[in-house]
Amino acid sequence: VAAEAFYDELETREPERREREQLAALRRQIAHAKARAPFFGALLKDVNPEDVTGRAALAALPVTRKGDLAAAQKANPPFGGLVAEERSKLRHVYMSPGPLYEPDSDVRDYWRFGRALWAAGARPGELVHNTFSYHLVPAGILAETGAAAIGCPVFPAGVGNSEIQVQAIADLKPSIYAGTPSFLRILAEKADELKLDFTSIRTGMVGAEALTPSLRQAMQARGIELFNTYGTADVGLIGYESRAHEGMLIDENIVFELVEPLGSKPVADGEIGEVTVSVLTPTYPLIRYGTGDLSATLPGASPCGRTNARIKGWMGRADQSTKVRGMFVHASNVMDVARRHPEIRKARIVVTSVDNRDEMTLRCVVEGGGEGLKRAIADTVQSVLKLRGAVEFVAALPDDGKVVEDARTYR
Amino acid sequence: VAAEAFYDELETREPERREREQLAALRRQIAHAKARAPFFGALLKDVNPEDVTGRAALAALPVTRKGDLAAAQKANPPFGGLVAEERSKLRHVYMSPGPLYEPDSDVRDYWRFGRALWAAGARPGELVHNTFSYHLVPAGILAETGAAAIGCPVFPAGVGNSEIQVQAIADLKPSIYAGTPSFLRILAEKADELKLDFTSIRTGMVGAEALTPSLRQAMQARGIELFNTYGTADVGLIGYESRAHEGMLIDENIVFELVEPLGSKPVADGEIGEVTVSVLTPTYPLIRYGTGDLSATLPGASPCGRTNARIKGWMGRADQSTKVRGMFVHASNVMDVARRHPEIRKARIVVTSVDNRDEMTLRCVVEGGGEGLKRAIADTVQSVLKLRGAVEFVAALPDDGKVVEDARTYR
Repeated sequence: VAAEAFYDELETREPERREREQLAALRRQIAHAKARAPFFGALLKDVNPEDVTGRAALAALPVTRKGDLAAAQKANPPFGGLVAEERSKLRHVYMSPGPLYEPDSDVRDYWRFGRALWAAGARPGELVHNTFSYHLVPAGILAETGAAAIGCPVFPAGVGNSEIQVQAIADLKPSIYAGTPSFLRILAEKADELKLDFTSIRTGMVGAEALTPSLRQAMQARGIELFNTYGTADVGLIGYESRAHEGMLIDENIVFELVEPLGSKPVADGEIGEVTVSVLTPTYPLIRYGTGDLSATLPGASPCGRTNARIKGWMGRADQSTKVRGMFVHASNVMDVARRHPEIRKARIVVTSVDNRDEMTLRCVVEGGGEGLKRAIADTVQSVLKLRGAVEFVAALPDDGKVVEDARTYR
Repeated sequence: VAAEAFYDELETREPERREREQLAALRRQIAHAKARAPFFGALLKDVNPEDVTGRAALAALPVTRKGDLAAAQKANPPFGGLVAEERSKLRHVYMSPGPLYEPDSDVRDYWRFGRALWAAGARPGELVHNTFSYHLVPAGILAETGAAAIGCPVFPAGVGNSEIQVQAIADLKPSIYAGTPSFLRILAEKADELKLDFTSIRTGMVGAEALTPSLRQAMQARGIELFNTYGTADVGLIGYESRAHEGMLIDENIVFELVEPLGSKPVADGEIGEVTVSVLTPTYPLIRYGTGDLSATLPGASPCGRTNARIKGWMGRADQSTKVRGMFVHASNVMDVARRHPEIRKARIVVTSVDNRDEMTLRCVVEGGGEGLKRAIADTVQSVLKLRGAVEFVAALPDDGKVVEDARTYR
């Protein structure tokens, strides 16, 4: 593999070297956060950064979640004492539901999307047709500053105006699309309808919604290779796909953990957990930030040569819950059940209403099968949830991140 | 006046020094454009840059207009040989109706809006609530890169979502609004309706539509000082208001001319002409670019201490025209009539239909008045337009830039 295949030498570090270097950077970051961000000064007041020498010490630090940020911002507006940079060095403030406010700064490629673009083959001078929104949310600027870091000009299109957009694509011949997968399909079909040339687009950097295998194949048939990405408005890029297309690689400038959903303890390898991230860049030094998103790691290493961990992508929200016959059912309960039966590859609780009575079914995709396994899983459901429920084996479950599905109809 | 009142020392140059320095920069720019932008290499092939030593020599160069850009871009996509920068140094490509495509580059404050913000009192660390769109057009990035040059973070809001926007204003307390004047009014009224605090906004950087005196006063009553701005997607900032609020000052990095509408010859001082600009920054080296916009200069110097020329703001499009009794009437014809009668301060042709017959009236705001002047103007209309028309003196004309108004109703 040629050296220019990689964005930098961080991607191909020996895993032990990465771990050592990341923990050293994390110790510096904890010291920086304590000194410059009053929120972490208080939260980590009894933590000596130099003691964080391994994963066990990291796991002893508290996890901060969206709710904590919202409370801190409300008490101490606008940023709750979490920003470690002076105001004149900030470039933007963005807004999430809550409301919750996120900063960025004039640090080059603040959102770290350049690495994702490079892994997808983007090179200097290629034009990016960027349909992520620049308004209120940082999606647009994330793709844009990544492109700028490589030297790719951007056509900032936003969503909508699909007729105008396909005209611009036919005229400007961008090679890269950035945006949601569904809007890429809308543009491709609009170009067909108007008989405008869409063939310049060879690469699709997609995110912000589920990428279905059928959409990936439909675009592949047009000669467009899709690269899934995963990130959040607080953290920036978390995962990206390389041309190996085996899960998503973790970005190099974050320390990544999967913890028990809404808890603090790391899960075992291969188990589903809540994506928890410590950011190693200075402006917004989130330490053990629990994103509320569920994912799981893949075993082994990527054939592309990158050595970082890989995740399966977004598998739902950790805070899904509902009430069944008066009892709470949480996404973490479904994880608990699945953890006790390694045969379960994917599972969701579906709640229905029959004659005004709640019925609960655990639908699972399993390795193998059989009535014995079904009975054993039903026993686990009973003991974990304190609720009787049916167990049903299915060939597949939708890739929509749902773990707890409320299918009751109320008329 | 304190030195920090000015963005740089360019603003207070002796006019003779500005002229000398601008012409020297223009000679370098012409040489650069000829060498790096094939369009100008061909257009100016017989021009020796060193010969452009004064306004007369400048006036002998050809004027390039939007139609020329569109034709060049069509023949030689995407930029028609007008961009003098390699593609990997470009940051964005934008789109205007035509379609016409405009680049920008990674030059600091490419669109030169920092000067306008500074003149309005923006200082490092102040938050800008930016409602100009970032999508397809460069309005949003113009305000944003200007803010970045000063050290002002930006909340990129776009247009729409007014409820969410006033929530963000109440929470983040920006001191500066950027956007259209009409959307500022919408936000202010939405904040009143939702009883949300809007008082942090003290400054409004407005543009992209006419600013009426009544809207300016309504915002002044709320403690918001409005600063009008004028720019285009090809040139960037052209004019900006200082706290003196006497017309708009010309930006320092352009050579400014007013020429006969759709012509090439400069108009006399005080006359209405087409805004024609030579850009002194290197990426997109437009030389004598006729914007199609009409304006006129104000006499004297600004009391704020800036010494550059001032214009009245946008006074309409040079390409307005209609057909009256089968004959073309152009905006330039109205200018021609006004030029022959210095008493005319403002004029427009209004075409109506009476019993299916076109009627034409020249409505004018005049200094003085009288039947003799009215008859003299009517004679000039007849000789310039080859059409008989009535002349009507009015106290005021709407500030909407219309010079040729077609008020015929077709049923």
